[in-house]
Amino acid sequence: MVNLMETPALLLDEARMARNIERMQRRMDNLGVSFRPHVKTSKCLEVARRQLAAGAHGITVSTLKEAEEFFRAGVDDILYAVAIVPNKLDHALKLMRDGARLTLLVESVAMARQLAAHGAANGVCYPALIEIDTDGHRSGVKPDAPALLEIAAALQGGARLKGVMTHAGASYDLNTPEALAQMAEQERSRCVAAAERLRAAGHACEVVSVGSTPTALSARHLQGVTEVRAGVYVFFDLVMADVGVCTLDDIAISVLCTVIGHQQDKGWVITDGGWMAMSRDLGHQGHGYGQVCDIDGQPIPGLSFGKANQEHGVLQWTGEGDITQVFPVGRSLRVLPNHACATGAQHGQYHVIPQNGGDWTVWQRFSGW
Amino acid sequence: MVNLMETPALLLDEARMARNIERMQRRMDNLGVSFRPHVKTSKCLEVARRQLAAGAHGITVSTLKEAEEFFRAGVDDILYAVAIVPNKLDHALKLMRDGARLTLLVESVAMARQLAAHGAANGVCYPALIEIDTDGHRSGVKPDAPALLEIAAALQGGARLKGVMTHAGASYDLNTPEALAQMAEQERSRCVAAAERLRAAGHACEVVSVGSTPTALSARHLQGVTEVRAGVYVFFDLVMADVGVCTLDDIAISVLCTVIGHQQDKGWVITDGGWMAMSRDLGHQGHGYGQVCDIDGQPIPGLSFGKANQEHGVLQWTGEGDITQVFPVGRSLRVLPNHACATGAQHGQYHVIPQNGGDWTVWQRFSGW
Repeated sequence: MVNLMETPALLLDEARMARNIERMQRRMDNLGVSFRPHVKTSKCLEVARRQLAAGAHGITVSTLKEAEEFFRAGVDDILYAVAIVPNKLDHALKLMRDGARLTLLVESVAMARQLAAHGAANGVCYPALIEIDTDGHRSGVKPDAPALLEIAAALQGGARLKGVMTHAGASYDLNTPEALAQMAEQERSRCVAAAERLRAAGHACEVVSVGSTPTALSARHLQGVTEVRAGVYVFFDLVMADVGVCTLDDIAISVLCTVIGHQQDKGWVITDGGWMAMSRDLGHQGHGYGQVCDIDGQPIPGLSFGKANQEHGVLQWTGEGDITQVFPVGRSLRVLPNHACATGAQHGQYHVIPQNGGDWTVWQRFSGW
Repeated sequence: MVNLMETPALLLDEARMARNIERMQRRMDNLGVSFRPHVKTSKCLEVARRQLAAGAHGITVSTLKEAEEFFRAGVDDILYAVAIVPNKLDHALKLMRDGARLTLLVESVAMARQLAAHGAANGVCYPALIEIDTDGHRSGVKPDAPALLEIAAALQGGARLKGVMTHAGASYDLNTPEALAQMAEQERSRCVAAAERLRAAGHACEVVSVGSTPTALSARHLQGVTEVRAGVYVFFDLVMADVGVCTLDDIAISVLCTVIGHQQDKGWVITDGGWMAMSRDLGHQGHGYGQVCDIDGQPIPGLSFGKANQEHGVLQWTGEGDITQVFPVGRSLRVLPNHACATGAQHGQYHVIPQNGGDWTVWQRFSGW
């Protein structure tokens, strides 16, 4: 089937994706929390619809472009999970006026004040979460920082404090169940502590939102949390397999490419899947540009993908046999990605292998800001 | 002007680009060779039109999508510079039947035979170049390999040998004028040797096509060469500055981003320009995700860009002063890319700063296959 497709192309195994969606949603149901998938991974309406149909409430986005596209398609409960800045306020305002139930994120007093002023000047009230830093990996205010209460106090008039949000991205660097469970508990307890501090100061703080794929799949309980966010679980990838929250058999996307030549003396197989098709994301750096598999998705031992140009992949073969016979020009290969979000972003569509069999179909994905 | 733009956004300094185009074209004119720019860097009609208006003959493409888009816009002389494989033949055939003067690339006997058979079966004759390996960095046959004459012999019936082509990509790893001039001479002499061998065997071999930005800018003469190809010169980037063929002042594209927060204790400035806006290309790995500049494009000493998430850039500040005052939330920054082809590919349009002043304008770029 996929042999006739022009390459490189991004394949999506619908059965695997459905299993991943089901696994996460059941886990969230059992933990008694609402689930808000991060659609930055797929940027695809067909994928998000399946996440929502499985029981998710609302979506998380990484750009206002995502907010716009999903809102236009009928998803109105949207958390924009990157701290807002002045040059995006008019865009956010327009989305709200068009009817989107958009929640914004702030992590500084200065921006909380500007947000409130912009809302007041335009006759709207922006619901906002305060970003909490629970693991030191990126942005947000610490649960015990003086700024937490100052930001909350600044969210009045044209803005209102809706809750707190954190993302334990440091979980990507862990790889044992125990360390992941500890990180999940750290993420939960520190975010809940921030919420309790705000409540003690007289703020309602209805939302306590936490999450990353590894912590969502490792938390033992989520007391005090109202919702969890996760993105990459929908497809999984080699980084998540290294973290230990999936196996290679769970990875739902792969890049189909074709052998275009060889350098026999070096043991090189050249393909038409270069970094434009894979992205430059080297993940945890143990898999080169990805894990090379045969057309059925089975890893090929002895074949590694260490070098790439824009439209050329250079695979190293250490196995037996005449390389031009084992990997003849025209042979199809599939490559599992290091990072599903990065590899997906290089493509304008998914070629979907349907879970019920039959011909592949195409789902569009969008990009940009 | 650019302060009002939503970020992240890809900026293009038209004056710098015009200077880069002029520099390369004048050099090619002086060397007495035809110039065929590689449009994989810009994937933008407006850019290619300026390259052609300056004197270029035809274009080089890295995908049939590029061939299609440029042909539709009126550019019909197109070299597809990645070895052709069976699953792309119908697409190539359609382009030729629609009137494109498309030249294909082969580097194996097996594919030369399939190409000729496909052409014969469909009543067309595919013009083809044989890819020559002059530097061992990627694909192609060596000038003295037996395969060279076998491929040429196989190109008959539905295909015909038009010439030879090479790309000395190994030049990207050099950084002295002498080493670059030597690589340019190696690229020239080995490709010309392949052409002469083919001619001695009775083949016409009208085209001898060489090139990479570093070798094109370093060759001392190009005897026997009929055309040169180069791509990244049109924008340049930090890798090219490291190679030594441009300065930072020649780099025509940059990513505009905005400060969204801080981690004061760590000296971190957080921006909305993450790896989605920059790509994951770390270039020669000395510049992190890129060189951070102020809004006027001047590098900011003491500010480095070592860490990125999808929509977050994490900059490290080692300078003086209160970081929240030096880089307040909302401040605009511009980041020069490691690799213009990779960074450009993350964006759907250029925000062009016109060389004659006035408001910025938008040029579209396309992507995919």
